[in-house]
Parts: sequence; structure tokens; C-alpha cells
Amino acid sequence: MDVDARVEAWASLQLLHGLPARTLVTLLKHFGGPVELHAASQRSLAKLVSPEVASVIERGPDPAVLETTLTWLREPCHGLAAWDDTDYPSALLAIADPPPVFYYAGRRELLNRPAIAIVGSRNATPQGLEHAEAFAAALSAAGLTIVSGLASGIDAAAHRGGLAAVGSSVAVVGTGLDRVYPPSNRELAQRLERDGGMLSEFAMGTPPLPENFPRRNRVISGLSRGVLVVEATLNSGSLITARLAAEQGREVFAIPGSIHSPFSKGAHRLIRDGAKLVETAQDVLEELGIEVTDHARGTAPPSGEASKAPAAEGTSAKVLAAMGHDPAGIDVLARRTGLAAEAITVALVELEVAGRVLSLPGGLYQRR
Amino acid sequence: MDVDARVEAWASLQLLHGLPARTLVTLLKHFGGPVELHAASQRSLAKLVSPEVASVIERGPDPAVLETTLTWLREPCHGLAAWDDTDYPSALLAIADPPPVFYYAGRRELLNRPAIAIVGSRNATPQGLEHAEAFAAALSAAGLTIVSGLASGIDAAAHRGGLAAVGSSVAVVGTGLDRVYPPSNRELAQRLERDGGMLSEFAMGTPPLPENFPRRNRVISGLSRGVLVVEATLNSGSLITARLAAEQGREVFAIPGSIHSPFSKGAHRLIRDGAKLVETAQDVLEELGIEVTDHARGTAPPSGEASKAPAAEGTSAKVLAAMGHDPAGIDVLARRTGLAAEAITVALVELEVAGRVLSLPGGLYQRR
Repeated sequence: MDVDARVEAWASLQLLHGLPARTLVTLLKHFGGPVELHAASQRSLAKLVSPEVASVIERGPDPAVLETTLTWLREPCHGLAAWDDTDYPSALLAIADPPPVFYYAGRRELLNRPAIAIVGSRNATPQGLEHAEAFAAALSAAGLTIVSGLASGIDAAAHRGGLAAVGSSVAVVGTGLDRVYPPSNRELAQRLERDGGMLSEFAMGTPPLPENFPRRNRVISGLSRGVLVVEATLNSGSLITARLAAEQGREVFAIPGSIHSPFSKGAHRLIRDGAKLVETAQDVLEELGIEVTDHARGTAPPSGEASKAPAAEGTSAKVLAAMGHDPAGIDVLARRTGLAAEAITVALVELEVAGRVLSLPGGLYQRR
Repeated sequence: MDVDARVEAWASLQLLHGLPARTLVTLLKHFGGPVELHAASQRSLAKLVSPEVASVIERGPDPAVLETTLTWLREPCHGLAAWDDTDYPSALLAIADPPPVFYYAGRRELLNRPAIAIVGSRNATPQGLEHAEAFAAALSAAGLTIVSGLASGIDAAAHRGGLAAVGSSVAVVGTGLDRVYPPSNRELAQRLERDGGMLSEFAMGTPPLPENFPRRNRVISGLSRGVLVVEATLNSGSLITARLAAEQGREVFAIPGSIHSPFSKGAHRLIRDGAKLVETAQDVLEELGIEVTDHARGTAPPSGEASKAPAAEGTSAKVLAAMGHDPAGIDVLARRTGLAAEAITVALVELEVAGRVLSLPGGLYQRR
């Protein structure tokens, strides 16, 4: 695929260092567009900007980096989106400092779908990962695109849940799009590039620099109508994303949990500060004023099968009732129901197949 | 102990049926006090009230019930508090419909101490009971009297926690004070009568009538600076108490929990409606503007031993770290730590003795 002059001009502008966004706006207005800006003489530039900035533009980007970028842009489904693109995300344009241009790999139409961000800690609990995936699947089924940051833990689970339904998922990353960080998410990144989207405002080759991640977070919230924090410790970057979302006028949602879990403390702080406490995907949709589909209904976060599963009957129903809402082993269930261990084992297999219970390590089972 | 004329007059007034509080205020103002009101002729009464009300007063209460009441009042530490008592609780006087008179057994000085109500479901979880008792103990240690309703479950745990420290505890009940409901709380009621307080606005002999309990709840919140809901299902009476507290301008606090637990749904609804989410007793004290003592400090609700327990060391520390915040069995802990089952068993016994873990049914252990 060929890269047209406008895209090449934007890529060049993106690669310039030391060009403030405000200055860029002035220059683009004056010259009419990125191609014209590139063709401008240093003399005409010098009338508008400092000699330093004029020479930065005149000199242009590092040719090797530009060539890498253009090679990347020639791949199928690779592209960039700039301020003057008609499909630059309108939600992102509404924030105080939208990136003038970003790179994008994946399904372009996802950029203007209603979206929700789901974020949380990297070292989340199994329960937290399950929540992230289940809420993401239900919200995606309701037509929302799930935006997250491709980190391990909650982010990855949210992307997986989003990819499972119609709304799909977009990752906003803090590196160049020719890199995957963390490497363990390489396969997930490939799925996102094919069925969802990968987005970065950073140049090709940019490594995972800590200073880029808070900057990246404003794009996660900026693309979204709201941010759902699933599990977050008090020092989690998710709290920064939530704060940015509130500053951008977006909704903030948080899932509560045990007062003894450090992974619920972040969510609890957000709720105290005004975030909406949510128990189900339906709660989120109602707050956003989105019509609730059957997928998102239910008292617990619907996880694909579970919401469609038929009601348990006979022995299975008895075992399910005895299970309560905490993990339980076969011995406990035997004591509670008075049934033989064999009967319980059979019932648990049935319930697991029906998607109503989850098998945990250590021979424990939990309602899902 | 003898019952003076004023107390007898108030007991008589309390036993009259069909005398609205508003009318009572008018009559007391006119005649100067309960004794004078009792001595009033029907003719002078008829000038102020309807003939029906005048004859109710003139006829007086059922002599047998009055005698039962006076017998009860003659017991040590039994008494009544009426509007014109200097130690009628000032917090209760501030509500829209304070009872003109109530019966009280116990330590009279507790009636005017700063108080907090702790309420919740009868069928609470073990975790909920632990929270109720631990928060109550910490808040009582900070000088707050714990008010609750003597029900099974959260109420009883809150009373026990309150009795354990300096603030003590007062039960507001929906029956006559010569009865205990539920009977399983008889021993607790005796402890409250000795070391705390038992309070009722209902006549001696009043059985546990369902219609009296919501009325009783306004006194629970009315005595208190705030109401803490520990665990409550969506149809729990605790939500009524919380609503009354909000109407009375008192603080409402709620402890969050798992989105899968029906016992957390009431607390979550309250938080959505504006209740303060609290994780520790310190959170409650800070909201109430009460100086925080060492007892109430700490990230988790301090439960006696746990807060004083020394840090676990060596194997114990390893096992504790592997436990996380969900119940876990020895096999799971063995897998997570790589330690032999015997070493883990020894460590768990040490941790249990040190008050750092709780042994649950089914061979599970949980951090406390």
C-alpha cells in the first residue's frame, strides 16, 4: 500500500522534537495543511515562529526513523489519524490536549464507536481478572468498545473480554506500535491488531519509558465515555487514569470489594471521591444512558455462558445453594447438603460445564 | 426503691392509648407537668381536648398493667426518662417525633454520651459478624456508645463489641423491657442491663409486634450521631434505619464487600445513595470529627488481638503472604509456598494463636 503525501507529512511532523502543539495549530492554520507546512521556506516560517523552531521544521525528521515509520505505514491495516482526518475520534478531540497525530493498527471504524475504558492493577486477584473480563464482555456485547492499556492483569483481561463480543477492544500503548510491552501480551496484541485496534501517539521504536505512561492514560480516558476501575491498589496508575477521566468530564466507575484486600483500596478511594459504585455491567450502561440488552442484565456480571445457562436442577441446585458466595471444597459441600461426595462431584462437573461454577486451585469451587 | 409521683404520673401517661404526642405537649404546658395533668378535672380537660381524650385521661391506665410497670420500676437500675428529665438524651430530643417517655434499664449516664448505631442483617456472614464486633470495639474504645437493636447477627455482634470497651452499648428494643426478643439474646440482654443499657418506649408486656420495629428504628438512629450498616440484604430493616438517620440529619456509613454477596447489596445501595464508604473505624471517627485514638487506627478494623499481634516471621510470614485475602486450604498454601504440609500446619497454628488467621469450616484459613 502506498503512503500518500499528506500521511507522510503528518508522520514527519510527528517525528519532529520541540514543536509545541499550540505552535503546530498556528502553523497548520497559516499554511493550510501539513504538506504545505513542510514545503514552507525557512523565511516564511521565521515570520511565525522562533528561529529554533523554524530550523527544526526545515531540517525535518531523522531520515532513518522516517523510513521505518513509512515502512510500517505501508503494511495492511496500518495507518495514522491526524487532527484533520474526518475519522479522528471526536471524543478525543474534546479533551484539552488531544495528540495532533497518532498511529493506529486495526479496525479503523472502532475509533468513533462509543467506548468505555476498563483499567486496574497488573497484579490483580483471580476474582479481579474474572470481573474485568466479564464486565468487558457484557459491555462489548452492548456495543461499547473496550479501551485499555495492554498491561498485564486487569488490562489484558479487559481486552480479552472486549474482543469476545461486538464492541471489540482498542489498546492505547505507551511504546511505538512496532513494539509490544509487556512481551507476554504479544499474542493479545496480534489479536487486537486483527480484530480490534492498537493505538499510540509515540514514534516507532519508542521503548516503554515510565514518563510516557501517565501521558498515555489521558488518551485512554479521552477516547472513552467513562472509566471503570476494577481492582487497583492505592499507588496504581489506574487512579491517575480515573482522575484524568473526571477532569475530562467523563464518568468514573469502580467495583467495590473486601475492606481487607489491598486491591480494593483504590476503588474504595475513588468511590469516596465520587466515583459510581457498580455491581453489574447493567449499572454502568444505565449510568451512561445506554439501552440495556439481555447480555448485560443480571445481578452478577454476566460472563458469556453463565448468563445463558439454564437454571440448575435437583442435586445440582442443592449443591449450588450450599455453595454460597465463597469458595468451598467437596467436603464442605457434603457437610452442608448431606449428600455423598460422589454425588457432589457429579453435580460440580455438571455445574462447571453449564458455566455456573468455577473450579479454583486447591479443589475449591466458586459460583460464577 | 420507691417510685416518686412524677415517675408514676409519666408511667400512667405512657400507658394511655389514644393520646397524640401533640395533644400531650399542649396539656403538659397548660397544667405544668404530668402530676398536675393527672390531677386535672374532666371539666378543665374538656376545655382543651375532645371529650374522648378527656375521658381517656380521666379513666387512667389499666391498674394491673400500671402495677406491673411500677413493680418493674422499683428494681435497681430500672427507670424511665421523660421529656422533662434533664438527662433525656439531647440527640433524641432533636428528632421530629421523640418518644415523650421511655423505659430504661442500665447505666443512666450512657444516655447522653456521643453514640453511633451499628446495624445489619440477622443472617450475616462470619466476616460480617467479625466486622460488626471489631468496628464496635474500636469505636467504643474511642468513646462512642454503640447503639443497636438486640437482633441476632450484626446487632448482637455490635453490642458485644461495644461492651468490650469504654463506650459500652445500649440496645433499643421493640418489646417491653420485661421481655427479651429473640430469647437467644437473653444473656446478652443481662450483660447490657448491667454494663450498658436497655431502652424501650413500649409498655411492659409488649410482645415483638412487627409494626413496632420500624418505629423503634427511628430511636436507634435518633440516639446516634451516625448509623453504620455492616451487612444488609436489600430487604433488611437496616436500610430503613439508615434512611431515617439521613432524614434526621445523621451520618450514614456502610462497609462495602463482594459484588456477589447478597449481604453487601444493601451497603452498596446506600453508598450509591450517598452513604460514606468506610474501610476502618478510623474512617468513621474522622467523618464524625472525633479525635482518633490508637485503638481505632490501622488499615484493617482492629480486632483486639490482631492489632496487638507481633509481625509474623519466617515460615509464618511466608504462609501469611501466600494466603492473600481469600480463604485458602493447606494444599493451596503448600503449592504457593513450596513448603511441606507439616510446616504449614505448624505455621497456621502459630498464626491462629497470634490472632492473625482465622480457621474456617472445611479446613480453610483466612487472614483476620
